[in-house]
Amino acid sequence: MKSILIKNALLITLDDNRPDHFYGDLLINNGLISEITETPNSIDPEKAMTVIDGTKLFVMPGLINTHGHAAMTLFRGYADDLPLQEWLEDKIWPIEEYLKAEDVYWGTMLAVAEMLKGGTTTFTDMYFFMDKVAEATAECGIRAVLSRGMIGFGDSAEKGLLETEQFIKDWHGSENSRINVFLGPHAPYTCPPEYLKKVMVLAEKTGRPLQIHLSETKKEVEESIQNFGKSPVEQVDELGLFNYPVTAAHCVHLSDRDIEILAENNVGVAHNPGSNLKLGSGTARLNNMLAKGINVGIGTDGAASNNNLDMIEEIRLVALLEKGIRMDATLIDAKTALKMATSMGAAALKIADIGILKEGLKADLIGIRHNKLHLTPLHNPLAHIVYAAAAADVEYVIVDGQLLLEKGRLTGIDEERVIFEASKHAKELVRAKNEKRDG
Amino acid sequence: MKSILIKNALLITLDDNRPDHFYGDLLINNGLISEITETPNSIDPEKAMTVIDGTKLFVMPGLINTHGHAAMTLFRGYADDLPLQEWLEDKIWPIEEYLKAEDVYWGTMLAVAEMLKGGTTTFTDMYFFMDKVAEATAECGIRAVLSRGMIGFGDSAEKGLLETEQFIKDWHGSENSRINVFLGPHAPYTCPPEYLKKVMVLAEKTGRPLQIHLSETKKEVEESIQNFGKSPVEQVDELGLFNYPVTAAHCVHLSDRDIEILAENNVGVAHNPGSNLKLGSGTARLNNMLAKGINVGIGTDGAASNNNLDMIEEIRLVALLEKGIRMDATLIDAKTALKMATSMGAAALKIADIGILKEGLKADLIGIRHNKLHLTPLHNPLAHIVYAAAAADVEYVIVDGQLLLEKGRLTGIDEERVIFEASKHAKELVRAKNEKRDG
Repeated sequence: MKSILIKNALLITLDDNRPDHFYGDLLINNGLISEITETPNSIDPEKAMTVIDGTKLFVMPGLINTHGHAAMTLFRGYADDLPLQEWLEDKIWPIEEYLKAEDVYWGTMLAVAEMLKGGTTTFTDMYFFMDKVAEATAECGIRAVLSRGMIGFGDSAEKGLLETEQFIKDWHGSENSRINVFLGPHAPYTCPPEYLKKVMVLAEKTGRPLQIHLSETKKEVEESIQNFGKSPVEQVDELGLFNYPVTAAHCVHLSDRDIEILAENNVGVAHNPGSNLKLGSGTARLNNMLAKGINVGIGTDGAASNNNLDMIEEIRLVALLEKGIRMDATLIDAKTALKMATSMGAAALKIADIGILKEGLKADLIGIRHNKLHLTPLHNPLAHIVYAAAAADVEYVIVDGQLLLEKGRLTGIDEERVIFEASKHAKELVRAKNEKRDG
Repeated sequence: MKSILIKNALLITLDDNRPDHFYGDLLINNGLISEITETPNSIDPEKAMTVIDGTKLFVMPGLINTHGHAAMTLFRGYADDLPLQEWLEDKIWPIEEYLKAEDVYWGTMLAVAEMLKGGTTTFTDMYFFMDKVAEATAECGIRAVLSRGMIGFGDSAEKGLLETEQFIKDWHGSENSRINVFLGPHAPYTCPPEYLKKVMVLAEKTGRPLQIHLSETKKEVEESIQNFGKSPVEQVDELGLFNYPVTAAHCVHLSDRDIEILAENNVGVAHNPGSNLKLGSGTARLNNMLAKGINVGIGTDGAASNNNLDMIEEIRLVALLEKGIRMDATLIDAKTALKMATSMGAAALKIADIGILKEGLKADLIGIRHNKLHLTPLHNPLAHIVYAAAAADVEYVIVDGQLLLEKGRLTGIDEERVIFEASKHAKELVRAKNEKRDG
């Protein structure tokens, strides 16, 4: 495997045993971080096959996107400014009916290419035709947590369980463990208790964690109270779901008791402020969750409700929103926001060996160019990344020790072809839906 | 003067008499838009000295930044995650004491260069050493509304009035009217009633509009009620300030009556959601203001509280925040958000001939490249700009018929020198402040 040396970079390791930022070198060997020095130009370049000049680069752990539906890039800008039910029932679900495996492949390629260019090194997905998502993930070199989305109604209920089990066998741990498979029951309101019990049996059998949408909207919570006499969090907790490792997406409308349950059971939370705002779902109780010690990662959600997969933008929104909503400028400082997007995201996804720059951990890291107008002057590197940087500033991305973005260019993805194919597949989907409507 | 033809572009004119978007050509002559066609490649290229290939470009009115303090770029990242009073009193004000004319010049150059690259064609400034700000504005080719900030206490009170009058004489209407000068009383809490009366006398004498910070924080409103028995809006209204054209910045904490007063008096509002969130000031009642017909423009505020001057980011925040806070996904649709950043911003700043692409209006416009991963597929151009685009996608900027950004490069500004000089001046300011502290 290739060895890479990054020389003379401004390192932001997010390791609490080191200074917040310092100039130094970082060496990668066999996919792992093998050496970090706090003196620039101190590691012998002869040690590495590839040397990257880190001058004017912030080098930090890769960003971890803890929630999304990658192939929904095909529906980016297809339906906006609509109430959630109209958006879902009149726009998204009807067009998703026409999705074929190849659409999902190109939609995922588009998503992964966009995410890599913006510094994301791990993404999370819950969708359909997951073999195609895994293929795209394998080809592109990115790290992923993938779930076949399961709905507990109708014919597809049983199929979801069978396909999930097969998907785990086929893909979990593959590509040098870059591909992680989770069970993906969609949500308590689409997975009745009897079905969730079957999902738990499969979790027991496979030993794999679960991801689930939880308490995304006020309506969902109200209906849960109406149907079960308890909140979605209480309901799945009483079923025993939290006896298994769980990453819960959204968690916008939580009671104090809900937050305690999540904390007691070490449930990871994927916080998606952009999507929660855009769909009118509301604003989560982020600071309360963090205060209870919950691992809260950051997610973009799908591009149909965001509308990009820009994690730096999402980090900024996390930090700004909480300050404004709670009217307290000290909440979610820059370092906390960066940890949420890296080490806390890794913890939320139950992955132990990424999220910090540290010897022995996996080499998932990014380089952000800072000799730019909007990052001048350089008073505080951490504040610059959170409050001023942009996806386009990301110039280097390394995942599992492989250089996937070099001087701002994707090394293994034909960007023009992805744009062409994704556009073509999106157009065909719209045409198919409109023909049905007009026919 | 130069003539420029943009051929085969995806035009977003924001003119209600035209389709939302269409492929066509746009011709510029003598600083004005002279022809728009709804058929691509229909204007004879021989008519223009410069021809821009608009293929894969969105072409729309330039963005209008209605509130800021340009030279505060020098303090970008200097103080973050602090309570407003500590931020101001321990960090910003003490370092501002050391500001010299040359600092303001280079801080403004940095701001203007950053703004142009992100598609801003008009910016608003309230600061000190305004001759230097006007010089930088004149050199860079951008359009501006400039005010010498006036504080009504101490020695500087009288000086502020005199310098404002001189500044109007020296600069208002210069550079083919690119430079507009407003009176800039800082805020009701820094300008006592007797002082505001003097400002109004000067407004009467010069015929120039005013800009003022208004109801930015809850504390400001509470203190106004304590001191005057009325809100800041009611207080300045009763003084007669709104008998003059006014642009009010922030307006975060408004009563229903305040909103009525602003609407009745055609007060323009500069809405700064990013700064309001970051400083913990809160969230404005945007939809209520728009419902009453108030012209609400968008502002970045200074880079010490934002921390960039990225108007596309700010447009997105405007649209997302209102949906999430009010839990209604239909609020501030993409077109409304774009109008706020262009035509409504122009109206808020009392400038009649910019903000729409229309024959006879000034040629202030931008081109945004859309054959990019994060803008694929192309379902809806307006939604893409608001919800997915980035400052780095802006490739062309034309102000007053002059091409200031071409293929993403500034035509008249030495970017590297600006980064070098601004960094140097910022460093010297920090050194001066620390020497005082340690001395």
